[in-house]
Amino acid sequence: MKNNVETLIGNALNGDRASIGRLLTYIERSPEIASKILSIIIQEKGGGHVIGVTGIPGSGKSTLISRLISHYKNSGLRVAVVAIDPTSPLSRGALLGDRIRMQEHATDPRVFIRSVPTRGVKGGLSFSGVAMIEVFDRLGFDKIIVESIGVGQTDIDIMNLAHTILVVTAPGLGDEIQALKAGIMEIGDIYVLNKSDKPEANRTYAYLDFALETGEIGSEKIKWKPRLVKTSAVMGQGIEDLVDIIEEHLQFIKKSGIYQEKIRVRRRYMVRLLAEKLFLETLENLSDSIEPTGKNIYEEAVQLLKETLSQFD
Amino acid sequence: MKNNVETLIGNALNGDRASIGRLLTYIERSPEIASKILSIIIQEKGGGHVIGVTGIPGSGKSTLISRLISHYKNSGLRVAVVAIDPTSPLSRGALLGDRIRMQEHATDPRVFIRSVPTRGVKGGLSFSGVAMIEVFDRLGFDKIIVESIGVGQTDIDIMNLAHTILVVTAPGLGDEIQALKAGIMEIGDIYVLNKSDKPEANRTYAYLDFALETGEIGSEKIKWKPRLVKTSAVMGQGIEDLVDIIEEHLQFIKKSGIYQEKIRVRRRYMVRLLAEKLFLETLENLSDSIEPTGKNIYEEAVQLLKETLSQFD
Repeated sequence: MKNNVETLIGNALNGDRASIGRLLTYIERSPEIASKILSIIIQEKGGGHVIGVTGIPGSGKSTLISRLISHYKNSGLRVAVVAIDPTSPLSRGALLGDRIRMQEHATDPRVFIRSVPTRGVKGGLSFSGVAMIEVFDRLGFDKIIVESIGVGQTDIDIMNLAHTILVVTAPGLGDEIQALKAGIMEIGDIYVLNKSDKPEANRTYAYLDFALETGEIGSEKIKWKPRLVKTSAVMGQGIEDLVDIIEEHLQFIKKSGIYQEKIRVRRRYMVRLLAEKLFLETLENLSDSIEPTGKNIYEEAVQLLKETLSQFD
Repeated sequence: MKNNVETLIGNALNGDRASIGRLLTYIERSPEIASKILSIIIQEKGGGHVIGVTGIPGSGKSTLISRLISHYKNSGLRVAVVAIDPTSPLSRGALLGDRIRMQEHATDPRVFIRSVPTRGVKGGLSFSGVAMIEVFDRLGFDKIIVESIGVGQTDIDIMNLAHTILVVTAPGLGDEIQALKAGIMEIGDIYVLNKSDKPEANRTYAYLDFALETGEIGSEKIKWKPRLVKTSAVMGQGIEDLVDIIEEHLQFIKKSGIYQEKIRVRRRYMVRLLAEKLFLETLENLSDSIEPTGKNIYEEAVQLLKETLSQFD
């Protein structure tokens, strides 16, 4: 297996698509092989820029990502997309649609797109998702775009791993912005008002601008004041501006040390998520066979924990 | 503390609303006290009927639940509602609206409504949610309605604990039904076509009827063939029929032993979810301070896992 994995990594480093795909499949399927792969690949220099893109459903996030891919590709960069796919059957349909929209890049050798289910840890951020970001980084992808649907804790978690966080909104989604405020509206480095060709765009822009000014959304992070950009992904407008601000933010985080810190956070997440995964899988197996008395739930839970631990001795 | 808890349970058993509320708050806040409460209260006979209600957003689930509450109340029964509230900021708004709609029962001494966030285990089913079902049961509530929004694994999990599962749909939600098929459309004991006063109702009824006949939705469970009922909660139509079929199902599961089996499953879930909660909280604290090398992620994860579990020795 060892030689096998090393050959695969060698081929993947040479840009062989099939090998990259197989590496990622190993990452998803076996924690042991994933660990093996990571231990080898982590010796590569890396240096990619992880861009998290989240936003309100209906904001045209996928079309925007597609435009970013085209732009980076045309600048001679290699782009990977990790799309975090919620297990919810409701949203799966929508995401599949998005996937298809991004397929125009699917056969391009400079672009690699992969969906990762969140099912990993009970609907939370999965070990595979984080490990894939690491792998793309070490394989020399310049821009690693992490897409998530903008709902719930998973999004906040995955966005924590991104160097630069884009929050995409659109005109006429005022209520949704209100609803989301508690979540993703707080975490953006760059807020993108997409679909800005729409008639209501100016009003929404003014609202977002005001909300940013007053600190109602987007908390200032160590001297980076969150920015607001107008785009129309469908019309191809504003993409250059957006790319410029993304680069500005990259320069900022490299100078301020945030870039390196995020890489440390990523590694910590990987280990923690893998520990969770191993634990929950073992616990699930064990707990199917227990018959608690209910006389002391706490004691019985601790007992179950100890039993789980003994599986790893 | 012990006497305190015992007094509280005594008062709650006498139907004192404030005491019931405080018991539930303890359940949410402290696993140790929750365990104490459960160990005492589990000696009560119980015997409640847990009815899970899930369904497509927009199907009028909350109005239907409100009708069921009225019906049971008027029959002299005590009704508890455990509403599983996803942490997603997006859906929170909608659920708060639902809560308000159910408030008409809020001051009735025979009715107790409580929301439980899913945040417990990373967006999954929470320990408190299951423990509350147990507490309501032992406090002598006759019908314990568990409401969930019908999206994702949490719903499937919580529904596993219900004696009787209602899946609510509505006319004109065909696409949504398709999208949900992989999830909740498989788990119903009773399918409710609500809003059946709408013009498209007959077509949707025919579709659901056919899907049930052909086994496309609703898998047959040990001799219970899933049923289909038309209601219009707003007009108050079909509620009697629905209640009759719910009773028919209750008789069936009591005879077949499923009723008792579900109580065992509930207890097993409680212990397992508490174990998960204790583990994940401890892991989170520990993993914030680790600095993995990445040389062997698997080994490092197992190390972290052992360290976490050793906190319980």
